Amino acid sequence: MTQYAIGVDLGGTNLRAASVGRNGVMLDQVSGATNIQAGREFVLRDIVQSIETLRSRRGGETLSGIGVGVPGFILMDQGLIVGATNMPEFDNFPMRDEIERRLGAKVILENDANAAALGEKWMGAGRDVDNLVLLTLGTGIGGGIIVNGRVLHGYLGMAGELGHITVVPNGNPCGCGNIGCLEKHASATAISAMARLLNLGDDLTAEEVYRLAIGGNVRAISVFESMGAALGVALANLINVFNFPLYLLSGGPLPAWDLFAPSMFVEVERRSFTYRNAGTYRNAGASRGTRIERATLGNQAGLYGAAYLPFQLDSVNETPRVDV
Amino acid sequence: MTQYAIGVDLGGTNLRAASVGRNGVMLDQVSGATNIQAGREFVLRDIVQSIETLRSRRGGETLSGIGVGVPGFILMDQGLIVGATNMPEFDNFPMRDEIERRLGAKVILENDANAAALGEKWMGAGRDVDNLVLLTLGTGIGGGIIVNGRVLHGYLGMAGELGHITVVPNGNPCGCGNIGCLEKHASATAISAMARLLNLGDDLTAEEVYRLAIGGNVRAISVFESMGAALGVALANLINVFNFPLYLLSGGPLPAWDLFAPSMFVEVERRSFTYRNAGTYRNAGASRGTRIERATLGNQAGLYGAAYLPFQLDSVNETPRVDV
Repeated sequence: MTQYAIGVDLGGTNLRAASVGRNGVMLDQVSGATNIQAGREFVLRDIVQSIETLRSRRGGETLSGIGVGVPGFILMDQGLIVGATNMPEFDNFPMRDEIERRLGAKVILENDANAAALGEKWMGAGRDVDNLVLLTLGTGIGGGIIVNGRVLHGYLGMAGELGHITVVPNGNPCGCGNIGCLEKHASATAISAMARLLNLGDDLTAEEVYRLAIGGNVRAISVFESMGAALGVALANLINVFNFPLYLLSGGPLPAWDLFAPSMFVEVERRSFTYRNAGTYRNAGASRGTRIERATLGNQAGLYGAAYLPFQLDSVNETPRVDV
Repeated sequence: MTQYAIGVDLGGTNLRAASVGRNGVMLDQVSGATNIQAGREFVLRDIVQSIETLRSRRGGETLSGIGVGVPGFILMDQGLIVGATNMPEFDNFPMRDEIERRLGAKVILENDANAAALGEKWMGAGRDVDNLVLLTLGTGIGGGIIVNGRVLHGYLGMAGELGHITVVPNGNPCGCGNIGCLEKHASATAISAMARLLNLGDDLTAEEVYRLAIGGNVRAISVFESMGAALGVALANLINVFNFPLYLLSGGPLPAWDLFAPSMFVEVERRSFTYRNAGTYRNAGASRGTRIERATLGNQAGLYGAAYLPFQLDSVNETPRVDV
C-alpha cells in the first residue's frame, strides 16, 4: 500500500496543497487564492477542503500525516502561530488543534520558510547534505536552517529570522525596530525602494528594475550590485557561524542572479575566512568547498517540506521536541 | 568503580589537565606553562606526561577517555588541527593519533572555544539548557555553539567563528582578511587599540583601560561602551539566527561587564525583534526570555568540556560524526 503525506502551503496570496509519496514524488496538487479578507473561518474551511479533496482522491492509501506551512512564528509545543503580521486573525490562534479537530488527523505546523528549507533538503538543491541554510527573497526575507536533517527551531520556534540580520548598522529602518536589516537592503521591496532613491521610477516592481538592468541601465544595475553586497555580508556571517556545506537562495528576485551574485561573492570572499579556506581544506575533510547556490524547487519547496514533516516524524518515532 | 575522564586544555600560555568524574566533579588537576618555543615534541611530551600523571593517581578506576581542547580548527574525522596560527608546528599535525599512540588510549580533539561552550553546558551557566552560544573574549574572540547538547562543528569543524562576524562593515581591518570583525571591536586587543586611538596611552592593557574607566575616565568608559555596542550587534544577529535560550560571555574582559553590558543590551534590544518578543511569548512557550549572561566556569570551562567529550560519546554509543 502506498504511503503518502499531505503538505499545505498557506501563503498570503496562494493556498496550495499536495499529496506527496514517501519517495518524494508529488502525486497530486490543488491550489487557489488565499482569501484572507473573507476571514479566518473561510480560510480554515479552504485548508480543510483542500486536504479532504486530496485525501479522497487517494482512495484507501495510507495517509502518514499532514504538514502545514504558515507565515509567522510557530510555538511548536502548542501548535500556535504568533507574529503572523499579514494574517492578524491567525495570530495566537490554535491552528494545529483546530485543523486536527476538523479532519480527525494528525497535523504538524511549521513556519513557511522552514518548510521550504526542509523541502529543498528532501527533494531539492540540498538532497546531498544534512545541513543547510535557505534564504527566501520576497517582500521580506525569510530563513530556514536545517541541522542534521531537521529544522532548527530555537526554544520558541523563532530561529532563522535571517532577514533581520544587521548588514548595514546605520542603514534603512525596518518594521522590526532595527535599522539596516538584510531585508531592507536585499528583498524585492528593497529593490523597488533603491530604484526609487536612484530616481529610476516611483512605483517600479523588482521585476521592472530587473528589466531595466538587463537593458543596460547603469543605475538599475547598481541596485542589484547593492543587493548582492548586502546578501554577501549576511552570508559571510552565516558561513562563519555554521560552516555548513550549502547556502541556498530562493524567491522572486532569483532570475537576477547574474546581476547580484558577483558582488555577493566579492563580499563573501572578503568577509569569510571560512569560505576561502573551506576550499583549501576540502581535500582533507570534504569533497568540495562551501557552496552558495540557487534553490531548485521554486514555490513548491514549502509544499515538499510540509509534506515531509509527518514522514520525518515517523522515521524516528518521536514527537516534535521544543528545545529549551 | 568510579568512572572518570581526563580533559586537557592546551592554551598558548598554559597547559592544564584534569580528571573529572562522570558526575562532573573535578577530581584532580595539573597545570604548567605551555612551552611552545621548545618545539612540538616538547609540548607533546608535556601533554602525555600530564595525562599519565593524572591517570596514575586514579589507581584502578575506569578511564572513560581523554578529551583535548586546542586552538585552531579541528578536522574531526582525521583528528587534525588546521589554522593553529599561534602554534604553527601543530598545523596539519595528526595530533589525535599521535597522543593516542603514545598513551594507548582513546583521544578526542576539540577546538578550545567549543570545549569551553560544552563545559559551560555540562557544569556551568548552561546546565539548564541544551542549546547555547558562548563568546570567549580574549586576544581574539572565539565562539562555541551547542545544539541539542552537542558542539555544532559544521562540515569541516570550522563552525562558531563568531569573532569574525562583521559588526562594522567599514570598520577595523582584521587578520582574517575582513574589515569590521567583532574581534577587532570587542576583544581585549580591541580595547587596547581603542584606548590608543583615544590617546589614553600607547601600551595600555585591557585591564589598565578598565582601571581608568572605573576611576571615571570618560574616554576609557567610552571604549567599553563601544565594545558593548559591537557585542550587541553580534549577539542580536546570533539571537535572530538561533533563538536559543542562552548566550554566554567569558574571558579576561568579563569583570568590565557593568561598563560594557548597558550599551550591549541597548543594541540587542534594538536589533533583535526575537529578543524583545521572547519575553512576550515566554508565558506561552517557555519559562523566561532570552538570557545573555556571564559564563561561570572561568578558565576551567575548557577543561570540563574536554573531559565531557568521552562521556558524551559513551552515552550515545557512537563515533563522532562529521556533518557533510
